[in-house]
Amino acid sequence: MRVKCIVSYDGTHFSGYQVQPNKRTVQGEIEEALLKLHKGQPIKVHASGRTDAGVHAHGQVFHFDSCLNIPEEKWPYALNSLLPEDVVIIEASYVNPDFHARFNATAKEYRYRINQQKVKDVFKRNYSFHYQYKLDLSAIRQACNHLCGTHDFTSFCVAKTEVDDKVRTIYSIEIIEDDSEIIFSFIGSGFLYNMVRILVGTLLDVGQGYTDPNSIPVIIEGRNRSLSGKTVPGHGLYLWKVHYDN
Amino acid sequence: MRVKCIVSYDGTHFSGYQVQPNKRTVQGEIEEALLKLHKGQPIKVHASGRTDAGVHAHGQVFHFDSCLNIPEEKWPYALNSLLPEDVVIIEASYVNPDFHARFNATAKEYRYRINQQKVKDVFKRNYSFHYQYKLDLSAIRQACNHLCGTHDFTSFCVAKTEVDDKVRTIYSIEIIEDDSEIIFSFIGSGFLYNMVRILVGTLLDVGQGYTDPNSIPVIIEGRNRSLSGKTVPGHGLYLWKVHYDN
Repeated sequence: MRVKCIVSYDGTHFSGYQVQPNKRTVQGEIEEALLKLHKGQPIKVHASGRTDAGVHAHGQVFHFDSCLNIPEEKWPYALNSLLPEDVVIIEASYVNPDFHARFNATAKEYRYRINQQKVKDVFKRNYSFHYQYKLDLSAIRQACNHLCGTHDFTSFCVAKTEVDDKVRTIYSIEIIEDDSEIIFSFIGSGFLYNMVRILVGTLLDVGQGYTDPNSIPVIIEGRNRSLSGKTVPGHGLYLWKVHYDN
Repeated sequence: MRVKCIVSYDGTHFSGYQVQPNKRTVQGEIEEALLKLHKGQPIKVHASGRTDAGVHAHGQVFHFDSCLNIPEEKWPYALNSLLPEDVVIIEASYVNPDFHARFNATAKEYRYRINQQKVKDVFKRNYSFHYQYKLDLSAIRQACNHLCGTHDFTSFCVAKTEVDDKVRTIYSIEIIEDDSEIIFSFIGSGFLYNMVRILVGTLLDVGQGYTDPNSIPVIIEGRNRSLSGKTVPGHGLYLWKVHYDN
């Protein structure tokens, strides 16, 4: 039976999602919990994608196959009792055996939190990027309009990205103002390596007046990583939701 | 010159505020930063009071004496550059040499955060007590009315508390509802060891219907720790503000 899980995790103390030798990873913790539950039988999990060190997940999705006869609503309890406290299974369900967490994903939402407080908030240091400089949100919104749509995002991913096709579609970029925070929500067909963090770095340059919002099409056209902004830190980033067709 | 500082800290990775041998403490980190700043001269800091392991501070206050000629607005920068990232100096000012962070405090505010979400929120695990059971807030408010005022709080502190006078005054207890959280704010003349955490444990019993709100005067009168509720965990507690006469 194939099980689909929605998991949230605090990325602070992880070397990212994907298993790496001698590192603490989210996948490693989940596979260890499943190993215990299946009395020593190794179970491989397949996620919608990786997240980097320090990056959080509000709703990452993974699937695995199990021969255990556990009602779907009991799966979160069974796994959470074996998982460390920085990984929490939110929901589980049985799905068709041809469901694949990565290949069937139709869209993803990432959020990036920016904390605009003057003095650093000690409770947000791992959960929001502290950036106290004033931002021109109308210039940022203009830049967002240029970024939405289907483009080759070569200028917005790590230079050595080994994916041939760098064309992606951004469906929407929303700006949520919440107290002293600005949250960017990106919904797209998929995102290249570091793409959200480079998009945010570029939007901050726009908000500060260093980059003209109307130069975004030129940056896209240039297909060159050196044209866009800095990569902002991982700890402000959240894999918020993975969408599937039902 | 005597310096008064307001400091916030994330208590998660500390064995409490007060210096203890071979333990990571907030006071220890602050005194180490001051030692570096004063080129090896030890400086003792005096706080408004201690906080336990896991307990946070939004606005703890301490003072110390220094011979350094630093403008008051520069003190936070000087100290924060030497402090670990879970301790942040919010504000500093020069005060009269007879000011004392502990003895001059006229009132303290503590807050206790309770997270009522069904599924544990991974990002709040160290910052809010997860208690998903429904609470009768009107019964809790009734109990709060009985707790406010000047009472002998022997029933609401650790049994072995070695303070002779257990009479304290609670000026107000406020209940703040925020999304899926309930925050109790206690303002009082002072609080005995574990007092806020036992008060909250008792209020949760009232909210669940296990304790009649009108039995609170009987519990107070009894002067016996066994009459009140459990001590709730430290990670939901914040030393919010220390008040001084100006």
